[in-house]
Amino acid sequence: MGRLIYLDNNATTQMAPEVLNAITEAQSVVYGNASSMHTFGREAQRLVEQARDNIASLLDCDSSEITFTSGASEANNTVFMIAKSLIEKRGSGRIVTTTIEHPSIMETVKYLRKCGIHVDQAPVAADGSVKLDEFEKLMGPDVVLVSVMTGNNETGTIQPIETISQIAHKYGAFMHTDATQAIGKLELSCRKWNLDYLSCSGHKFYGPKGVGVLYAKKGIPYEPFVHGGEQEHGRRAGTYNTIAIYGMGVAAKLAKENIDEESRRLWAMREKLREGIVAKVPNIVVNGCSDRQHCLPGTLDVSFENVEGESILLMLDMAGIAVSTGSACATGSLEPSYVLMAGGLDVELAHGSIRFSFGRFNTMEDVDYVLEVLPPIISRLRAISTR
Amino acid sequence: MGRLIYLDNNATTQMAPEVLNAITEAQSVVYGNASSMHTFGREAQRLVEQARDNIASLLDCDSSEITFTSGASEANNTVFMIAKSLIEKRGSGRIVTTTIEHPSIMETVKYLRKCGIHVDQAPVAADGSVKLDEFEKLMGPDVVLVSVMTGNNETGTIQPIETISQIAHKYGAFMHTDATQAIGKLELSCRKWNLDYLSCSGHKFYGPKGVGVLYAKKGIPYEPFVHGGEQEHGRRAGTYNTIAIYGMGVAAKLAKENIDEESRRLWAMREKLREGIVAKVPNIVVNGCSDRQHCLPGTLDVSFENVEGESILLMLDMAGIAVSTGSACATGSLEPSYVLMAGGLDVELAHGSIRFSFGRFNTMEDVDYVLEVLPPIISRLRAISTR
Repeated sequence: MGRLIYLDNNATTQMAPEVLNAITEAQSVVYGNASSMHTFGREAQRLVEQARDNIASLLDCDSSEITFTSGASEANNTVFMIAKSLIEKRGSGRIVTTTIEHPSIMETVKYLRKCGIHVDQAPVAADGSVKLDEFEKLMGPDVVLVSVMTGNNETGTIQPIETISQIAHKYGAFMHTDATQAIGKLELSCRKWNLDYLSCSGHKFYGPKGVGVLYAKKGIPYEPFVHGGEQEHGRRAGTYNTIAIYGMGVAAKLAKENIDEESRRLWAMREKLREGIVAKVPNIVVNGCSDRQHCLPGTLDVSFENVEGESILLMLDMAGIAVSTGSACATGSLEPSYVLMAGGLDVELAHGSIRFSFGRFNTMEDVDYVLEVLPPIISRLRAISTR
Repeated sequence: MGRLIYLDNNATTQMAPEVLNAITEAQSVVYGNASSMHTFGREAQRLVEQARDNIASLLDCDSSEITFTSGASEANNTVFMIAKSLIEKRGSGRIVTTTIEHPSIMETVKYLRKCGIHVDQAPVAADGSVKLDEFEKLMGPDVVLVSVMTGNNETGTIQPIETISQIAHKYGAFMHTDATQAIGKLELSCRKWNLDYLSCSGHKFYGPKGVGVLYAKKGIPYEPFVHGGEQEHGRRAGTYNTIAIYGMGVAAKLAKENIDEESRRLWAMREKLREGIVAKVPNIVVNGCSDRQHCLPGTLDVSFENVEGESILLMLDMAGIAVSTGSACATGSLEPSYVLMAGGLDVELAHGSIRFSFGRFNTMEDVDYVLEVLPPIISRLRAISTR
């Protein structure tokens, strides 16, 4: 195959060369268990603590507030299980979240409801932003936890987390945000936003897979999700995934250095692609956010009338272009995107949607190539579907 | 520092060169999300499925019965949460386990008890083996799950899992074994032992950290622990840790090829060390198992009278020898080993215990060096403590 263009950076990213070099070197020499007291253990622990500092710096929080997990899904599960436990202890209480969260929250909500926990979900507007008035109507003194994602994985829409955090705290609730898609793309601040919990993972911002972080504010309720050893001061059991943790730390350091420049680059490519598609392909809808301030810079979600998203994906794949029809975590499901439908998109358009997500290793030439390849594919598929 | 000898292979192992080479090569080129439908995703998926086949072959089960997790701690938690759910659905039921399980089971037991779940723990004999008569006295038709580890991380004692599995099934219970320490060291067979669940991790047999496996027999009750995406047919959410999974698969293939020869090598080193210590150091107790058939081949646990294990560990570390006072997962706790005390060892001796655990990269010269360095350290520490 000739040219290969990866435009699915919201699903996962290629590790940065700096990360790859760091972990390739480390994994051949550091193998101790970071919990061990001897030289080998302490060397591993040093890498873990270095990563913790780098990530705390990126998230603007204290290093002691960082707990390493196996990824954002586990971190999200942990926060909701903490809320469940709080509600059970108090004998009452509710969780308020939205209709567009990641599957690791949507499915946890279903599980909690089966356990008898009351969860309300705030709706979103057509641009994918949470309707703040409706959200506040759901609030009350019985709300224990508010959980709203920072930036959406499908539409790229950024939520006003600082404002939502203020509302949550006004009612005495704890504030959680799933920042998995936002980390490395916009400035996050646990301090400024007054967050109680934040989840993220390494592999969405050029770090390794298999590692994530749960930030939990000092003094906030906490219960381990994975029970066992004394790792992370008893907050998360299981042998430290030292090398992946170290790699996530290197990625965090890089992200902090490059965040502004990277965001500008991503937005320029996204906008060029959007403008090109609008100009070249009739009968489309650009989903979600529309301005720089409210968009994850590298995300573009487009619905094509009278075409199946999956067919577009497969045809683009044959042309060497990797895109997605929505969340990689929803692959295997034939349902149209609940995120797009929550914004009011009709079923048929939702079925015809494609997410293009740019990353550090894309170039303007990639956009040119997509704009060359995509329009005839859409025409061909439309010709077939109307035959 | 001069010579460095790693004798803490039960805490974690160095990756095999074959594993290191495989993942070093793969991680620079395979970065897709294994759930994605495009070329990048399918390439990642191919590595995942290759690993699944290798591990199924080592465990003697079907590939479809393998679920990848973040490690053995998560796999153990998952099994106990499945049992909790079964008991809650039935409105009654019990779990039977032992007093010497890994912290990821001991702490989960504490958590389940707080949730109102009844758990009984069978005692062990002085050699660390489960007292089968006492175990069977705890059984009854209300037992939902039996969980007994295959080989103990501290004493190395191997349990008669096939027999225990027969007893469990006689009473209609599901059988689980935590085989984390046994995998790669003795032949495991999910089929022959008629197991319902088995847990293990990659990093204890020369694979990467951050990955584990839960085997669950076809048709057996299953509920996800980490809720979210459709990964692993809905059994475990979270982006595939592709490279680590792949590495665990390479480790499984190696283990299957080398298991007999490796075991003989480990046992020879273990026995040479045991004999040397017995000959050179007075007032010691060799803990746990004593014959080849009932021992994990590379594990030797010794209690030294009138000395603190931690002091021995630190002195050996200064001499370049890495050992442990017990489970790495219990580091940070000042309590003496509950595993050794469960076997009847008195508190003081338990405080003075050291675990030597051999691995593929140790040699007979390592044993010679330990036998040269250890006796004077013990003498010196004893001289201090009796001053």
